[in-house]
Amino acid sequence: MRQRILVVGGLAAGPSAASKAKRINPDAEVILFEEGEHVSYGICEIPYYLSGSISDIQDINPMDPATLERTRGVNVKTLHSVEEILPVRKKIIARELEHNRVIEYSYDKLILTTGSTVRKLGVKGVDARNVFRVKSLADGIAIKRYVTEMKPRACVIIGGGYVGMELCETLRSLGINVTLLHLDDYPMTGLEQETREAVLAELTRHKVEFRPRQKVTGFNVGLDGCVKTVVTESGSFNADIVILSIGVEPNTSLASQIGIRLGRYNGIVTDERQVTNIDSIFAAGDCCEVKNVINNKFMYIPLATYASRQGRVAGENAAGGATVFKGVIRSIGVKVFDLEVAQVGLSLDESRDSGIDAEKMQVIADSNVKSYPGNRSVNIVAILDRRRRRIVGANVFGGPGTVLRANLLGLAIQQKISVEDISHLDLVYSPPFSPLWDPVLVLANQLRKE
Amino acid sequence: MRQRILVVGGLAAGPSAASKAKRINPDAEVILFEEGEHVSYGICEIPYYLSGSISDIQDINPMDPATLERTRGVNVKTLHSVEEILPVRKKIIARELEHNRVIEYSYDKLILTTGSTVRKLGVKGVDARNVFRVKSLADGIAIKRYVTEMKPRACVIIGGGYVGMELCETLRSLGINVTLLHLDDYPMTGLEQETREAVLAELTRHKVEFRPRQKVTGFNVGLDGCVKTVVTESGSFNADIVILSIGVEPNTSLASQIGIRLGRYNGIVTDERQVTNIDSIFAAGDCCEVKNVINNKFMYIPLATYASRQGRVAGENAAGGATVFKGVIRSIGVKVFDLEVAQVGLSLDESRDSGIDAEKMQVIADSNVKSYPGNRSVNIVAILDRRRRRIVGANVFGGPGTVLRANLLGLAIQQKISVEDISHLDLVYSPPFSPLWDPVLVLANQLRKE
Repeated sequence: MRQRILVVGGLAAGPSAASKAKRINPDAEVILFEEGEHVSYGICEIPYYLSGSISDIQDINPMDPATLERTRGVNVKTLHSVEEILPVRKKIIARELEHNRVIEYSYDKLILTTGSTVRKLGVKGVDARNVFRVKSLADGIAIKRYVTEMKPRACVIIGGGYVGMELCETLRSLGINVTLLHLDDYPMTGLEQETREAVLAELTRHKVEFRPRQKVTGFNVGLDGCVKTVVTESGSFNADIVILSIGVEPNTSLASQIGIRLGRYNGIVTDERQVTNIDSIFAAGDCCEVKNVINNKFMYIPLATYASRQGRVAGENAAGGATVFKGVIRSIGVKVFDLEVAQVGLSLDESRDSGIDAEKMQVIADSNVKSYPGNRSVNIVAILDRRRRRIVGANVFGGPGTVLRANLLGLAIQQKISVEDISHLDLVYSPPFSPLWDPVLVLANQLRKE
Repeated sequence: MRQRILVVGGLAAGPSAASKAKRINPDAEVILFEEGEHVSYGICEIPYYLSGSISDIQDINPMDPATLERTRGVNVKTLHSVEEILPVRKKIIARELEHNRVIEYSYDKLILTTGSTVRKLGVKGVDARNVFRVKSLADGIAIKRYVTEMKPRACVIIGGGYVGMELCETLRSLGINVTLLHLDDYPMTGLEQETREAVLAELTRHKVEFRPRQKVTGFNVGLDGCVKTVVTESGSFNADIVILSIGVEPNTSLASQIGIRLGRYNGIVTDERQVTNIDSIFAAGDCCEVKNVINNKFMYIPLATYASRQGRVAGENAAGGATVFKGVIRSIGVKVFDLEVAQVGLSLDESRDSGIDAEKMQVIADSNVKSYPGNRSVNIVAILDRRRRRIVGANVFGGPGTVLRANLLGLAIQQKISVEDISHLDLVYSPPFSPLWDPVLVLANQLRKE
């Protein structure tokens, strides 16, 4: 009989999984369910779509449902909400949203790619007309329309993480005044203090008003249905538009109903083949936790790269293949105005929590030959495993090329290359690209001396 | 008795060696001899000094003899030409050029850092007033003065290697017409054909007239002592200024006199401690060959990074330390107008000559998210060791960030990371820095499929 593979979720991991499954087993019937109307788009590009850097919405949504069907042979059902899984009978129950009709689908293999949901702020007024999230293509389109039509002059961004940083730049580039409310003392909680201070300085330099230790307690909503001020425990802030970027959590409502194993962060925990603890059910993407190969702990790191890769692995294995997703080190980069910021591997706190005898060391090196135009500092805050003499994490921040250099450290971390071997690396030297001693070598030499 | 360490050569390896020796053994007397008047400068920066990108000569010559003496405790003797080594008596004979006086110096340890010399063209007229090399700080200053005073309109560059490429860009940026004469069909002999074609296209796009298969046979010199035309076997080319960039060879005249072991390329061959085959004599820098750790063969790769590192190692060991220079993979980068070009590791030919079952594969990937402004192609021509399933070399060319990406491949080559492990790398994804699948991952995925 023809194999049937169902995929629940159409953003990143889902289309990857469905396409891969069909490619591995062209005879299989592969059906992808998506609640919204769009599939397979780039969430990470939305800030750049808003700023106009990316001008055409098509560019971040290259694959519409019809294209996915035509080019990949996947049966795509948008505006379908999967409401229940019947794991013993190997069925799912989906609601066709347009006609509000419920239909059962049986499966041989089921792949959950249900993604993440925005954390709840738990405050009245959060659904006002001018309060936005940046979680879907629809959100992006709605913000763009609102900004174009209403020409807001003051924006309050709630949450100073990666997405918050990108939005600060986006909105400032549109000439909008930005107030950034953050729970913590410094933006970018989770990064090292040195990095967070540099980020704050960059925000300030670009006239973002950063307000630390702000817990939002309410919104004052006007008669037009729009928030006028954002109220916190210690103040109130005028806003023509409010954007929430307070992070996401795994969307596991379906999974948890049927006892799929969740981890410490409430994400689905799978093995390396992306198989869950329930027979014939796979999971991939932002609904999952990922294993960090440095300390072998599961973490929640919702990133498109992991989603795509896990999706491929789940799809291949569901269709009869045998492949693995080996885990991650966590590599994240963000552009904060003119500052490139990257985190690779563990933080100092995470390292110590993992029982690593870790210490932190900062080096500030030149990106280029000192006198070469455009030379900027590259700051590396490295986390050293003292016993094993290797780097287990790093924050890197600076000018152009910083993130690509962070990848070099990422590779060294992932491959467990010793500090000594890093110091022996043969890296390109040429004034337009690097000083005689590349920052990575400066770091390694410094670490060796310790 | 106080240890005496003599260093012969003051450009890159020499000052590194002398400084390091003094740091390791502060009691030692360290004397550095240099024929010219400058020490410790950056040859690689000269093209950028000529173009004005680096405006101050101080910036490429930060360490004058007095500073080297004061800050490092090294006794610096410029305008001293070392003419002979007496290895049994452990002495050298140096000529003080200003007074034309010969003096003997005894040594406990001798470090040869005699660098390289420009290949001979062997053609009359090569010493004309307007024929220049780019081999020393003095050369750079002379070219700058000539260009400023004489305002040449037509330049003939002889030799289309790395330095030739940089000079093309420099001279075009000064509004000078450039004709590039090269022996071969394409510029950048030694790189893969794909790269060489891209370089040629970039030269052409910037109106450099590239003339292939040109063997220079003579110069027509005017009454003013300046070359008027460069004559080759197949034509003649008008020139107001001529620059020779036909490569260098190890300067081993001193070493060969006393039977110091030279290699296939006439460079000094040392062990990992930079020790030669003659008692108490070390060597470092462009006068040496370097071991390529991929095929364990010695090659001649005169690069400032290797010179600095070998210098440090020679200095440390001469002063009683114990350290090694493990060898290189060869990492070279050059900016050809708007094209970044890098070579890491072996070429296809070199791989096959080393008995590696090698094949070449090219991938063309995006540097950024496709729709992100500034997205450019990154071309990777990778050399795969088919049996061991790993990369042994690559040419990488493209827009900004290309060279820093090449370093990632360089690290993978140096650490002998398998293609499969490269495909599992966790690299940063963010629209300003990278597409969802970084070019390095695109390559690895492609290689895995093979």
